[in-house]
Amino acid sequence: MSEANIYWRIVMEGDTRDTMKITPFEYEDGSLKVLDQRKLPGKEVYLEIETAEDMYDAIRTLAVRGAPAIGVAAAYGYFVALKKWYNEEMSYAFTEISTNCTPEDFMAEAERLKDYLGSARPTAVNLKWALERMYGKIKTAAEELIELSEDGELSSKGVDELLKIAEKEAISIHVEDVEACRQMGEHGLGLLEKGMGILTHCNAGTIATSRYGTCLAPIYLGEERGYGFHVYADETRPLLQGARLTSWELNKAGVDVTLICDNMAASLMKAGKVDAVVVGCDRMAANGDGANKIGTLGLAVLAKHYGIPFYMFVPTSTIDLATETGNDIIIEERDGQEIYHMWFKESMAPEGIKTFNPSFDVTDADLITAVITEEGVIYPPFNEGLSEAVRKAGEKRK
Amino acid sequence: MSEANIYWRIVMEGDTRDTMKITPFEYEDGSLKVLDQRKLPGKEVYLEIETAEDMYDAIRTLAVRGAPAIGVAAAYGYFVALKKWYNEEMSYAFTEISTNCTPEDFMAEAERLKDYLGSARPTAVNLKWALERMYGKIKTAAEELIELSEDGELSSKGVDELLKIAEKEAISIHVEDVEACRQMGEHGLGLLEKGMGILTHCNAGTIATSRYGTCLAPIYLGEERGYGFHVYADETRPLLQGARLTSWELNKAGVDVTLICDNMAASLMKAGKVDAVVVGCDRMAANGDGANKIGTLGLAVLAKHYGIPFYMFVPTSTIDLATETGNDIIIEERDGQEIYHMWFKESMAPEGIKTFNPSFDVTDADLITAVITEEGVIYPPFNEGLSEAVRKAGEKRK
Repeated sequence: MSEANIYWRIVMEGDTRDTMKITPFEYEDGSLKVLDQRKLPGKEVYLEIETAEDMYDAIRTLAVRGAPAIGVAAAYGYFVALKKWYNEEMSYAFTEISTNCTPEDFMAEAERLKDYLGSARPTAVNLKWALERMYGKIKTAAEELIELSEDGELSSKGVDELLKIAEKEAISIHVEDVEACRQMGEHGLGLLEKGMGILTHCNAGTIATSRYGTCLAPIYLGEERGYGFHVYADETRPLLQGARLTSWELNKAGVDVTLICDNMAASLMKAGKVDAVVVGCDRMAANGDGANKIGTLGLAVLAKHYGIPFYMFVPTSTIDLATETGNDIIIEERDGQEIYHMWFKESMAPEGIKTFNPSFDVTDADLITAVITEEGVIYPPFNEGLSEAVRKAGEKRK
Repeated sequence: MSEANIYWRIVMEGDTRDTMKITPFEYEDGSLKVLDQRKLPGKEVYLEIETAEDMYDAIRTLAVRGAPAIGVAAAYGYFVALKKWYNEEMSYAFTEISTNCTPEDFMAEAERLKDYLGSARPTAVNLKWALERMYGKIKTAAEELIELSEDGELSSKGVDELLKIAEKEAISIHVEDVEACRQMGEHGLGLLEKGMGILTHCNAGTIATSRYGTCLAPIYLGEERGYGFHVYADETRPLLQGARLTSWELNKAGVDVTLICDNMAASLMKAGKVDAVVVGCDRMAANGDGANKIGTLGLAVLAKHYGIPFYMFVPTSTIDLATETGNDIIIEERDGQEIYHMWFKESMAPEGIKTFNPSFDVTDADLITAVITEEGVIYPPFNEGLSEAVRKAGEKRK
């Protein structure tokens, strides 16, 4: 077992919990598998990622989804692809006598792979971020190695060293994500009480991250500690992430989960069954307006009406201080077929009917009871707390 | 063309509108066809109703749905079945010499058919009501005829007379329903302005009634009069009546309709696209709490938050003065498979997952801007207005 793997094992085994039976990817000693989330909940299939093309396809076709999960999987995929290139492609080029690789060849391939994988989902911020971090680390290390070498080349030992550094960096990205989720879970759990009914929307769970999820993290931690939560999962139309993913992963972890249609949340709240609403966030503006999966805004309005706390779980990487308010967030509109055709045996509306199908909505800051980041809980007004959390998290990464 | 049919033609032709291209059933000269709503929107198929069994199946299997539509269709079906029984079954029993039918035989069959058809959907109030009204009318007329006869029997001429009375009664029930819907449409239209964006939920339209619908009535009348409404139809999970039925019927009538998922309503309201919400009602308590399709309550809360008027369309037959408040309305819970399996190519959640699947929710009276009945618009507090409307409607039926 490599040094990096030992590091990883220590982190994970110190933290093994009975409830966490699934992961969106599995990495061990150079071998990467990614859970094919398109097949859920019917089939639990892991895709072997052996080439850059495998990784590209898994991201592009949404086999792996959820901003943090995409970033971490891509970091591992990048390492696996770079290693494969070196082992296979370069082995033809080297004789027994000359096993050196030109620094230009190696870095050109490192850059090509970064750009190629990054183009699998051009709008995914975490994907770009993770790949740039991997590439930057390798580039800096390569420059140092070349400086130290006698001939200005990379020896095979040097390349091995660079690959080890890449693997360790992917594992660091992974461990940091697990840690951030666990922190959000701890902070979130502090807001909840035993036996509560908790409503969630979409999937900001284990399989959208490396582990725990963002807004599901306190639920998993609570499950371990006997909190006995009753979780209600909105099915989340039109893409049904709540039904296909959230109800599946919570059910698998033994959490008491009840699936509802989005339009049933009001009934549950009126009946006093919901003590807190927990949701994720795709992008939060500097003032605390938060874009998240379509349907989140409606839940926040209902929660306010019924006096139920509404908690948004926001990794600091999701806070966009450059965006002043939610009004500046542009919402993508998607094909109407997602509403009336895609999952169904037959079309559920006249073909070509006009539709309105926004992917996200923006929940106004004044509807949010608290924002939970890995740095702690932030209460309104949010501006100052959000920039402070971003600053703190930035310090730690330095 | 029979006298009753002429009566019907006059009513309908004086009112023919280009927008109304569909009906949930067609009746003419003893021949009844019912639109098979299970096949919508893919196929527009009418079922021939020739026997009591045909009618029973059409109701039981939800080929015909919507409380008013069920009542009217059943009244016609009852007449068609009674006539068929007389023409076919009895023709064996009578010789050329004795064409009389015993009053006992005739009334026994009239009662049997009433009970049989009424058992197709035991909880449907309008179904029972329409069949009792048909039976009562025939019984009274038969008693009068027998009083006048010399031998205490029903002559074939007498039976023909009774059948004519039955046909006319069915047509009366039909015409009254059309009239009540038209009245609700007129009253509702008085609350709306040209160019408004109007959000609706489920299907309280033409095919749930005899014509116009309840909450869609002002939209159809407005369309005829150049109001240029922009209608948004919630798909209405889990049974998708908004997608399958409302978007289909409005689209067919040339109304500008946009299909959305239920959880997108808040986004539309926040964007200022919704000027009014119109919904139907399955049962209204004496205080104005109204039970309607699941999802209605959530819309009412959203409308209140965004300062948008929320209008509930309630035929007086739906007002239940014996029920004090919505707390006394028991809500049916249905099979969870409707949420994650029924329409889909494959199961969208783990089989056997816990679900909460109520058919209806109760919108609190204080969330309702106005109740629209065929007798007029009622504003809060509703108690007095509702009993007054019920009283007035009762007077007219006498």
